[in-house]
Amino acid sequence: MAISEIERLVQLLAKLPGLGPRSARRAALHLIKRPDSLLEPLAEALAAAGRNVRRCARCGNIDTVDPCGICGNEGRDATTICVVEDVADLWALERTGSYAGAYHVLGGTLSALDGRGPDELNIDRLVVRARAPDVAEVILATSATVEGQTTAHYLMDRLADCGVVVSMLAHGVPVGGELDYLDDGTLSAALKARRPL
Amino acid sequence: MAISEIERLVQLLAKLPGLGPRSARRAALHLIKRPDSLLEPLAEALAAAGRNVRRCARCGNIDTVDPCGICGNEGRDATTICVVEDVADLWALERTGSYAGAYHVLGGTLSALDGRGPDELNIDRLVVRARAPDVAEVILATSATVEGQTTAHYLMDRLADCGVVVSMLAHGVPVGGELDYLDDGTLSAALKARRPL
Repeated sequence: MAISEIERLVQLLAKLPGLGPRSARRAALHLIKRPDSLLEPLAEALAAAGRNVRRCARCGNIDTVDPCGICGNEGRDATTICVVEDVADLWALERTGSYAGAYHVLGGTLSALDGRGPDELNIDRLVVRARAPDVAEVILATSATVEGQTTAHYLMDRLADCGVVVSMLAHGVPVGGELDYLDDGTLSAALKARRPL
Repeated sequence: MAISEIERLVQLLAKLPGLGPRSARRAALHLIKRPDSLLEPLAEALAAAGRNVRRCARCGNIDTVDPCGICGNEGRDATTICVVEDVADLWALERTGSYAGAYHVLGGTLSALDGRGPDELNIDRLVVRARAPDVAEVILATSATVEGQTTAHYLMDRLADCGVVVSMLAHGVPVGGELDYLDDGTLSAALKARRPL
């Protein structure tokens, strides 16, 4: 069977997160059956992304311009920097529409297991940015995992003498969450951080 | 935020079966972070598939050549035609490695609900192929669903005077299946089709 070109497409699709061999085959057939409405537009979108997408030298965000659309947007509040692990976290915060400051993408967390130290992360540039006189606050929005919190504590030390307020996201009951289904850690964090009404 | 090119990639990826908006964003980031190892090869594989993949005029299979690799393979047994609903089913049968005959891809099932009649399916060509003097057997390998079986019965009628043996896949207990978890229909089919040892 000379299906090497189709097989190659399946193999590449299977490398995407969330697609295994079986769903990659389904996706490949789905694409091949829709050459004009999906396959060619996707091929072009990928080629365009490959040509034009780059990392913002300032914050580490991914965009088609450098500085990125957020760093280059004069309407945003440049006095606050929100530190996230990954671009996906930046996108998640942007979707909330409730943050209008700048970002800084670390590119991961400190991890003793994976051998990722401070030099592997985009930390030195963060310290330089935090020292700038117009920056007033750095929000540490790393994950509430052991590694995310380790990274946050390390950053707190590094930012201690930068003359900025360092804050963290609140922990607590997720909106819409039922207490019965919450883990003990979240519940006790929510209890500790209770607020008078 | 000028992320239109990235956003477009996410929207196209979200149209693939098995990927929702969230997993499409993850897939897009995964691609963008691996421009050389994944993004560009995938863009090229898609473009190549769009250029070269076509339907086999004889059996309806998808391949880069016409007639397809199976129809064009002289080593295969051209006296037997296995009728499947879709190219995915053909691929599944090929993976078993236990069939060496020809195929015929219907392109779906008869469906009163979806308004798909015999004219929408690749049936007329099947009847022409079955009438050829060298064809001895047509195996109906449609799904064991109501629509698949309706299609099989319709095909049986159409193939009645073609001078071929018409057979169907066996129904029964899946290999490795536990009786306790099987549905009643499969279990009673397996009981009816029991074989003396």
